[in-house]
Amino acid sequence: MSEFSAVELIIAKREKGELSTEQIEWLIANYTSGVVADEQMSAMAMAILLNGMNRREIRDLTAAMIASGERLNFDALALPTADKHSTGGVGDKITLPLAPLVAVFGVAVPQLSGRGLGHTGGTLDKLESIAGWRAFLSTDEMHAQLESVGAVICAAGSGLAPADRKLYSLRDVTGTVEAIPLIASSIMSKKIAEGTGSLVLDVKVGSGAFMKTLEHARELAQTMVDLGNDSGVKTSALLTDMSTPLGLAVGNALEVEESIEVLAGGGPADVVEITIELAREMLRLAGKPDVDVSAALKDGRAMDKWRQMISAQGGDLSVPLPEAKHSQVLVAPESGVLTRLDALAVGVASWRLGAGRERKEDAVQFGAGIKLAVQQGQHVEAGQPLLTMFTDTPERFERAQQALADSFSIDATAQQSGRRQIILDRIAD
Amino acid sequence: MSEFSAVELIIAKREKGELSTEQIEWLIANYTSGVVADEQMSAMAMAILLNGMNRREIRDLTAAMIASGERLNFDALALPTADKHSTGGVGDKITLPLAPLVAVFGVAVPQLSGRGLGHTGGTLDKLESIAGWRAFLSTDEMHAQLESVGAVICAAGSGLAPADRKLYSLRDVTGTVEAIPLIASSIMSKKIAEGTGSLVLDVKVGSGAFMKTLEHARELAQTMVDLGNDSGVKTSALLTDMSTPLGLAVGNALEVEESIEVLAGGGPADVVEITIELAREMLRLAGKPDVDVSAALKDGRAMDKWRQMISAQGGDLSVPLPEAKHSQVLVAPESGVLTRLDALAVGVASWRLGAGRERKEDAVQFGAGIKLAVQQGQHVEAGQPLLTMFTDTPERFERAQQALADSFSIDATAQQSGRRQIILDRIAD
Repeated sequence: MSEFSAVELIIAKREKGELSTEQIEWLIANYTSGVVADEQMSAMAMAILLNGMNRREIRDLTAAMIASGERLNFDALALPTADKHSTGGVGDKITLPLAPLVAVFGVAVPQLSGRGLGHTGGTLDKLESIAGWRAFLSTDEMHAQLESVGAVICAAGSGLAPADRKLYSLRDVTGTVEAIPLIASSIMSKKIAEGTGSLVLDVKVGSGAFMKTLEHARELAQTMVDLGNDSGVKTSALLTDMSTPLGLAVGNALEVEESIEVLAGGGPADVVEITIELAREMLRLAGKPDVDVSAALKDGRAMDKWRQMISAQGGDLSVPLPEAKHSQVLVAPESGVLTRLDALAVGVASWRLGAGRERKEDAVQFGAGIKLAVQQGQHVEAGQPLLTMFTDTPERFERAQQALADSFSIDATAQQSGRRQIILDRIAD
Repeated sequence: MSEFSAVELIIAKREKGELSTEQIEWLIANYTSGVVADEQMSAMAMAILLNGMNRREIRDLTAAMIASGERLNFDALALPTADKHSTGGVGDKITLPLAPLVAVFGVAVPQLSGRGLGHTGGTLDKLESIAGWRAFLSTDEMHAQLESVGAVICAAGSGLAPADRKLYSLRDVTGTVEAIPLIASSIMSKKIAEGTGSLVLDVKVGSGAFMKTLEHARELAQTMVDLGNDSGVKTSALLTDMSTPLGLAVGNALEVEESIEVLAGGGPADVVEITIELAREMLRLAGKPDVDVSAALKDGRAMDKWRQMISAQGGDLSVPLPEAKHSQVLVAPESGVLTRLDALAVGVASWRLGAGRERKEDAVQFGAGIKLAVQQGQHVEAGQPLLTMFTDTPERFERAQQALADSFSIDATAQQSGRRQIILDRIAD
């Protein structure tokens, strides 16, 4: 590998130059090993954020991050594999019903998930509210469970894309999170290294998402779809609405409860719709376009798969889910249609109630969060509950209420709307 | 002081926002104390480089850097004070004859100088080639010398603008040196903290300077002139040509030798011109616009002042200056007018010969450098010397020659030009 200087590469990107494949490989390898310092990489990240990267540079960056660690591979598995990644939202529990639902149809789902940070929840935090459930599996255990059950949701091992792990922590404290080349390469390096055969991206758009506009979300989705397909992973993306929370439940155990409702054939219409659409997309990419997905939710097959998946990782569904010690109701101040219920505000309130963490090392409260009584577009009567807040630590109610203060609008003259449009666009190669 | 978050401020500047006075004060105070980390400050520096700062922000940044340390003051001195700062060039030894020349006229010159880094030389390195000369003086010694001699060139104490010291080292390794708000606040925070009553800036323009174009140099000069005058320091700037080396000598002892020629009433015309123009400007600002500056070079008064200044700091001018052990001549490959002799290339060659340092902790070779036989615009015969390279370590000749390979053009048909224009512009409030 040729020798470059970090300052030289930073200046090149600062001056809107293009970095060569060799330069990007050198940068990431030397950042991982510590030769390129954090303060150099953060200046580079800011230059990338402001000046961008072209398709080749992003592909090289992703490849360099994959090359920084190990790479899994499911070729020994008899089944095709499909995975889903969401860019993160409020009330987004879709992975929970989705993984077993897809597995019903003979497509294995190796879902490596993360924890919540900030106002967005994390799949592992949610599942850990189930008594005994283990997030950490060895690679052998993961393979065995994919063989026997067909679905696994577990923590990504530290060996996958360590460069991304290091860079992600750096971006978090240096104001360089919101760069499409960096977001795309971060997500896709982990997903490609994970070894899935196909991948559906759920790119969230709106106040509760990283991407606030459809235009930015589309650019991110297209970038990631290109990266996946260029690397031999069949990849497509759905752009879905995150202006208001998904479903009625926000918070760890509350979302597990709602997921189980969906697996039992019920649940809020928006959660069911997005679960089915993502399952269809995953099955289509995995070569099974014609199966009847919704039937598996109605007839209990998805629920059976869910029970197998949870118990294979030590989870005991007969133990009641944790409940918060305290609750407080927020009532509607007037009658009318709830024309707006802001996802970010609800996410921040749930976070403040204890469902999320301030720092990485904090613990979450499994029972904390928010349960909506009304979704956006529905009618509410003055004095009736709008939502209920839950926490183990009642001193948190005040800051949660502050977050919710301007989070909703009620319009006495508006008409109750039909189902809101959740799937905003679809991007395939 | 209010509490802010570093990430919040980085994002504000990243999104082209304006930072408030309180935010800038908080940032610099907390960077100096270590609460704001290097990796955060480098991302901020890159955002400032790419998105800029307005006049108020630059003024606040400069004030915050001054506030990070101590501030000198020469109010107790009976004489007015004037200082000069050059943005750095190749063969720029002007401080050496200039300080004693100005002091001849009853204006005290408290010149806090630095060392060379990269291809530009440092005044302290040059003076240290004089046997016994001491760069480090206490504040009391500095005051005493200003009283008794009227001129002092010494190292800036570590107490002046420590925030700038820390930020400068960071910028050097993160590709964020070339930002006008950062260059201007760095220079001016030190100069204002130093306590001079008036200040003339020598802003270099051309290949051997930070500012490659007249437009950028003018912007930097205007920014610094505004900063100085806003802070009560009478400030003006000359924009001077740095496309080709200044004078015939480049390198530490070689430049001291040439400075002594100027103080003896001789020396290359360009060095004499710029010395006289800067002296006139300093004396004008200090309230002495009508003195005959060039007379003091001819009649030995400037030389007397130089001798007093050097011996006050332990320098022994009776000891011969160090000479390099090896030399090598570069001859003209053809006859004609030397239409181009690139400052950067000559600076880099001299650096490689040992006149400069690779890392801050390296020592310089006092005798190393380059002596020109011909200046840009003069005629040269094929086979006659163009320049001589000097070093103690002859293995360095090869890399110096490489730097010089494309550094000059000889045109057989061109006319020998008259004196080149050195003073390109003057900026006063």
